[in-house]
Amino acid sequence: MSDTQAHVPGRIMAAEMAEQPAVLRRILDEGAPKIREIAAEIAARNPRFVLLTARGTSDNAALYAKYLIEVLLGKPAGLTSMSTTTAYGAKPDLTDCLVITVSQSGGSPDLVASTKAARDAGAITLAVTNNPASPLAEVSEFHIDVLAGPEKALPATKTYTAELLALYLFVEGLRGGDGAAAKDLPELAAGVLARQAEVRALAERYRFAQRLVITSRGYGYPTAREAALKLMETTYIPASPFSGADLLHGPLAMVDNVSPVIAIVPDGKGGEALQPVLDRLRGRGADLVVIGQREQVDAASAGFALPAGVPEEVQAILEILPLQLLAYEVTIARGQDPDAPRALAKVTETH
Amino acid sequence: MSDTQAHVPGRIMAAEMAEQPAVLRRILDEGAPKIREIAAEIAARNPRFVLLTARGTSDNAALYAKYLIEVLLGKPAGLTSMSTTTAYGAKPDLTDCLVITVSQSGGSPDLVASTKAARDAGAITLAVTNNPASPLAEVSEFHIDVLAGPEKALPATKTYTAELLALYLFVEGLRGGDGAAAKDLPELAAGVLARQAEVRALAERYRFAQRLVITSRGYGYPTAREAALKLMETTYIPASPFSGADLLHGPLAMVDNVSPVIAIVPDGKGGEALQPVLDRLRGRGADLVVIGQREQVDAASAGFALPAGVPEEVQAILEILPLQLLAYEVTIARGQDPDAPRALAKVTETH
Repeated sequence: MSDTQAHVPGRIMAAEMAEQPAVLRRILDEGAPKIREIAAEIAARNPRFVLLTARGTSDNAALYAKYLIEVLLGKPAGLTSMSTTTAYGAKPDLTDCLVITVSQSGGSPDLVASTKAARDAGAITLAVTNNPASPLAEVSEFHIDVLAGPEKALPATKTYTAELLALYLFVEGLRGGDGAAAKDLPELAAGVLARQAEVRALAERYRFAQRLVITSRGYGYPTAREAALKLMETTYIPASPFSGADLLHGPLAMVDNVSPVIAIVPDGKGGEALQPVLDRLRGRGADLVVIGQREQVDAASAGFALPAGVPEEVQAILEILPLQLLAYEVTIARGQDPDAPRALAKVTETH
Repeated sequence: MSDTQAHVPGRIMAAEMAEQPAVLRRILDEGAPKIREIAAEIAARNPRFVLLTARGTSDNAALYAKYLIEVLLGKPAGLTSMSTTTAYGAKPDLTDCLVITVSQSGGSPDLVASTKAARDAGAITLAVTNNPASPLAEVSEFHIDVLAGPEKALPATKTYTAELLALYLFVEGLRGGDGAAAKDLPELAAGVLARQAEVRALAERYRFAQRLVITSRGYGYPTAREAALKLMETTYIPASPFSGADLLHGPLAMVDNVSPVIAIVPDGKGGEALQPVLDRLRGRGADLVVIGQREQVDAASAGFALPAGVPEEVQAILEILPLQLLAYEVTIARGQDPDAPRALAKVTETH
């Protein structure tokens, strides 16, 4: 890897996005047996409810796991407000509670502290990280390695899809499922990523955008949040994610001819629940780009059609791919470097 | 109320904001005994964990209650992803679980359906609404009336602070507290609202803003979310709320000379935890407006000083007031009508 190569904007992010099919394959082939084993051990202890702790991109993976846990397991689940422990010293009784902490690096001190506090409070603790040697893996009773390999670009891509798949296999393991819904994902992901030229065309419409609204429902909602985060941290365009139901209240005021909308439309119940929102947006003449099934794309201003026939509970792992590519392409189109968002680069310079 | 009066922009929102001290007084004087009674009954059944269900502004009140429950009660709590029940038909076992549904109108069919499902699943159900005759109050085992009187402006203001105070008194009741921290709030709220001219001056800096970032931590974080929602639905400026900890990751890329920041700085542990974020923002030369203590305001570009000596767990009830006024004043400055945001007005016209 020469110095010259290092200066091609977005080279690192592009390489890491391209690794995703191989990472998904690795999790299915090498990671799954261990994940199943951990899931069986935890299932035997029959947790009553689940709390998920994470930040940033990993928090969106945690939200996806929350949907899986509620829908597939029928267990109540919640996302932790970390400051209640780390700033306010809350000491909840966590007997019968499974606490899952999701973190790419496994190194953030507050995640380590809150996971340790959860374990002390009686919780079953599971860390899902990309680093088995991390302090977070160390303090947790159980650890799942997402096997994504080192991630160097500042915007996380391959660790996000790796977290999603690892969490899916874990929740499947908790209910004794075989995770068969995931088996075609590596090939399907490769097929989606090969269509970068389609995304490049879509990126044109956002090159001069001042804002974006991103919406979805159900299993697609974590994708909307992660897409907004990815677009904000690379392009700097303010992107507001809303569940479709919330959008119909106040925030719809922001949607008009200058405020384009991206809708992630799951093929299944989440997409059905989103239908009234799509109709309303079309009725307002909104610029609506759909990530979803072909017929949904055809009924919108533009979009990206996802492969058909994928079970709804794993569609999120494919949905995010064109949106990662979109963040990359819009950033390039705006003359910026996706590998080094200005503020993130400055983090190390500031005190 | 004549037709002529009806056309003064923002008249309804202004009137309802001004009612807030009287509403808070009414809750303390007339509502508190009943709230204490309900809390005692529920405390006797000793729920293990708490789930909160709401949308929009009420969802921000629910998030505030989540902090209270975790910090003051030491019970795990989570916000419901409603679609898991209403779209996917999830049937979690909710024995030992308290489910609190917060809704101004108490009329939204999905809130009614999910609360009914929770009650069928064994949960203790509590509705917190502004309408004791609502379907939501009907299907819930317990009901707290927030006594705000009819709310007619489309942006919710007095029902938000009423929900906060009612939820505070309820959580205090659960732990056998007397709610004394809230006793001065009506007078303090009146004092804050009387300083509208200060907010009008602040509004000037946002009149031509293209975007806003709003941040806080701990008890102030629900305020950041509600302020963002209020500003978006009235002014249409995209306003992104971030917890301070999350902001230090990717989204900081959005903060620069054209992206002003509003920080809500609680006087207490939340504010202490936010301090590194404030230092970082100052180091970047961000335009930083602080809502908080006088010394925090003086160290920022500008701000609004809140009264000193208020216990941190009830500061949220005052913090939002200057931000409601700000949404109102910026909207007026931009020549729009705070009472009738364009999309909300259109909701009734579209199918």
